Amino acid sequence: MTYCVGLKIDSGLVFMSDTRTNAGMDSISTFKKMHVWEEPGERVIVLMSAGNLATTQAVVSLLDERNKAVTDRHEKLLETPSMYQTVRLVGETVKEVIAQSSPAGDKADSYFNASFILGGQIKGSPPRLFMIYPEGNFIESTDDTPFFQIGETKYGKPIIIRAYDCAMSLAETVKLLLVSFDSTLKSNLSVGLPLDLAFLEKDAFKVGLNKRIGQDDPYYRAISEGWSNALKTAFASLPDFPG
Amino acid sequence: MTYCVGLKIDSGLVFMSDTRTNAGMDSISTFKKMHVWEEPGERVIVLMSAGNLATTQAVVSLLDERNKAVTDRHEKLLETPSMYQTVRLVGETVKEVIAQSSPAGDKADSYFNASFILGGQIKGSPPRLFMIYPEGNFIESTDDTPFFQIGETKYGKPIIIRAYDCAMSLAETVKLLLVSFDSTLKSNLSVGLPLDLAFLEKDAFKVGLNKRIGQDDPYYRAISEGWSNALKTAFASLPDFPG
Repeated sequence: MTYCVGLKIDSGLVFMSDTRTNAGMDSISTFKKMHVWEEPGERVIVLMSAGNLATTQAVVSLLDERNKAVTDRHEKLLETPSMYQTVRLVGETVKEVIAQSSPAGDKADSYFNASFILGGQIKGSPPRLFMIYPEGNFIESTDDTPFFQIGETKYGKPIIIRAYDCAMSLAETVKLLLVSFDSTLKSNLSVGLPLDLAFLEKDAFKVGLNKRIGQDDPYYRAISEGWSNALKTAFASLPDFPG
Repeated sequence: MTYCVGLKIDSGLVFMSDTRTNAGMDSISTFKKMHVWEEPGERVIVLMSAGNLATTQAVVSLLDERNKAVTDRHEKLLETPSMYQTVRLVGETVKEVIAQSSPAGDKADSYFNASFILGGQIKGSPPRLFMIYPEGNFIESTDDTPFFQIGETKYGKPIIIRAYDCAMSLAETVKLLLVSFDSTLKSNLSVGLPLDLAFLEKDAFKVGLNKRIGQDDPYYRAISEGWSNALKTAFASLPDFPG
């Protein structure tokens, strides 16, 4: 499995992903699920993936290769005129890869399926955040739904629903994401450390922060241990059932 | 969907279930998913169900009918000599009902499947808690895993993992269950109020508490509102990401 969250705040876009992939309990590996493309000062794009690893790697490789090719009839990721054209390009690539792997049948139910969170900013437009389905179509975040999760989304959702606020600082948002990831890590073995974190500050057109967080990260440890205690304190603060 | 939790504490067994059933978003009903059989002073049994409603109702009806029949070649729920024989009886009934509905194919993957939590106490033995699979086999709770969840289990699991303690009082356990249910209710529309609550006090051999908790229940409201605030306070008490 996988757990990735992309979140929009007033000051930009924040992304976090785990790195565990598995083909059964006895075949566990670490793979980066967060990919960044940037042309500093002009555009920055982050793509996170969940689902079949062969599919997600193929999508990223195709986007990369076509981007570097001098002549190629395909559109290039660093040349699309808008984030809308960018998400369409990625969606088309997803469709292409899944269709190659499973030529017949329902694409959404395919064993080869994968979903993505795409966010970024291109000069002249605000930051935008999208979720891309295995069918290649996509939705965009709004003020009502300012974040997307893919993979093992349930354990970590309640705290995001309750604590998210678009006026949060980056420092608070990272805290929120770590609490959400920690709940997921504690409940599902197929989501694992280390975590990748990226922040795209609004109008910076480059990656402001790109950090890997492992087991020994002192801040992660503080949150993981602190949250257990804080939850117990919060729980104790509520009145007991009167009977 | 459904959410049910059965939990073992030092002082007995606590059960909570929601009441929403749905066949699509536009076909929602309220059905009790918690069933109690008791012979005061001798035995008390609670059964909670998740899955196909026709299956779960058939299982309960069969258990009920055979229990009342004066002559019947089947074993009776109020006559089994031990909780182990009781869970075997229920497991056999589950197998029988699912086999009737889907005579061919893999029973576990069947559209007609259902799972159950069974708990109770029969004079001469301690309280015991079981989870029954659609195949009719079952597992028993242990000190390591003192609770079972069925249905939509993920949203409400992190708080139980973190706050459960077998020495908890009934009043604290009900609080814990309400927090877990509230997180689930807020995240999944297919889990809905009212909730049913039952407590089997150890060696009482009767239902000590059997209560329905609705939207207007003042304690539920206090927990639901209080937990949002307590979570925010807990979250604020953790250090922000140092950057």
